[in-house]
Amino acid sequence: MNKLEVCFSPALYTFFENRDAVVVVTDVLRATSAIVTAFMNGVERIIPVGSQEEAKAYKEQGFLVAAERDGIVLDFADFGNSPFNFNRERVEGSHVVYSTTNGTNAIHLASSAREVLIGAYLNLRSLTEYVAGSNSDLIILCAGWKNKFNLEDTLFAGALAKGVLQEGNHTTICDSAIGAIDLYDLARDNMMSYIDKVAQRERLRKNGLDDVIGYCHAIDQTHVIPVLRENYLTVL
Amino acid sequence: MNKLEVCFSPALYTFFENRDAVVVVTDVLRATSAIVTAFMNGVERIIPVGSQEEAKAYKEQGFLVAAERDGIVLDFADFGNSPFNFNRERVEGSHVVYSTTNGTNAIHLASSAREVLIGAYLNLRSLTEYVAGSNSDLIILCAGWKNKFNLEDTLFAGALAKGVLQEGNHTTICDSAIGAIDLYDLARDNMMSYIDKVAQRERLRKNGLDDVIGYCHAIDQTHVIPVLRENYLTVL
Repeated sequence: MNKLEVCFSPALYTFFENRDAVVVVTDVLRATSAIVTAFMNGVERIIPVGSQEEAKAYKEQGFLVAAERDGIVLDFADFGNSPFNFNRERVEGSHVVYSTTNGTNAIHLASSAREVLIGAYLNLRSLTEYVAGSNSDLIILCAGWKNKFNLEDTLFAGALAKGVLQEGNHTTICDSAIGAIDLYDLARDNMMSYIDKVAQRERLRKNGLDDVIGYCHAIDQTHVIPVLRENYLTVL
Repeated sequence: MNKLEVCFSPALYTFFENRDAVVVVTDVLRATSAIVTAFMNGVERIIPVGSQEEAKAYKEQGFLVAAERDGIVLDFADFGNSPFNFNRERVEGSHVVYSTTNGTNAIHLASSAREVLIGAYLNLRSLTEYVAGSNSDLIILCAGWKNKFNLEDTLFAGALAKGVLQEGNHTTICDSAIGAIDLYDLARDNMMSYIDKVAQRERLRKNGLDDVIGYCHAIDQTHVIPVLRENYLTVL
């Protein structure tokens, strides 16, 4: 039986780290939803970078750069963090450098694991089936908000954990997983109303960026599963 | 309006730290329930110490020492972490040195705050009224389990947060507080059955220490509120 755990913050990852595990990184509003969208729309590679300086250096080398902090597009970047920016006309066949407040650092943090995958509601079913069949321990790493717990990533972690456990190859004694599943079960039938009370909803609304919330919670829009190889993301 | 936040792990406290806040530390199974019990039974001071070495040094000076790691009483200690050890015959009028896996470190971590209080279901109502009337920001710090999230402290945080918010002097935009309240509301009417699924329940059961679970979830058994002064706990 493989072990399933949920980690609520990048700052807690050190207490979960397991080189034999598959790690699914999630940052539902908006980084991992944007990454999945980019691969749906034919991007060839996404290069996640942690620092603004590194993103800027790539820009100077001629790369297409998506970069934001606290929801605001950085001045040197081509565009920001909305999944709607990653449309086919813009990204098909290209390499995009990507830097965000929470999601891209979480991806780097997990990079010592056996496999690092990108999760969002958009690819929930494919991802569930893949990790359930992986014969590996699973860690679901929530990007959170500046190292704090957030509800939207927790709900997604609950959805994924519930689905994986139902497949029968994983078990859990992780309180974070149990709590995440219970919160997902509470929210699932009325997700948009539940999301109304999360802090990130208000941050996005203030910046006029909350048009993506419905899209980021749309389940099973694609089969693509982004995976980290060396320093870039591609599809499995 | 004062701000209310919940911190799910000592390892996340750095992202919440606020010297103007009142911090309530909770480690329901079992450290903070034991501390409240000791003050109910007339202990004069409890000296929380982080390391085993420090606890041992106090023992050599003749202090009464309660100390455990992972639920097991340390060999030099007089007794361990069960609230039932802190009975009146043993502790009344005395100074007890106390060191546990999670709770005592959390108390030290919070010590730069305006006031550090000890919370458990046993003193929930008094604590709620006191912090609601304190005109200070409130951080509820869950001791967790070895820096990981745990459900039993989260449920208590939800109970306290809910009560304090109902008093009307605090507000929250903290996802951890919202999640904790929702989990508490889910569990409250059937607490013992909910607690059956938490990891600490199983750890205690394995060591024959789960006899305290009902007691540690008994609400409003006392008015005492332990408070940290310099390096020791006393009552408000």
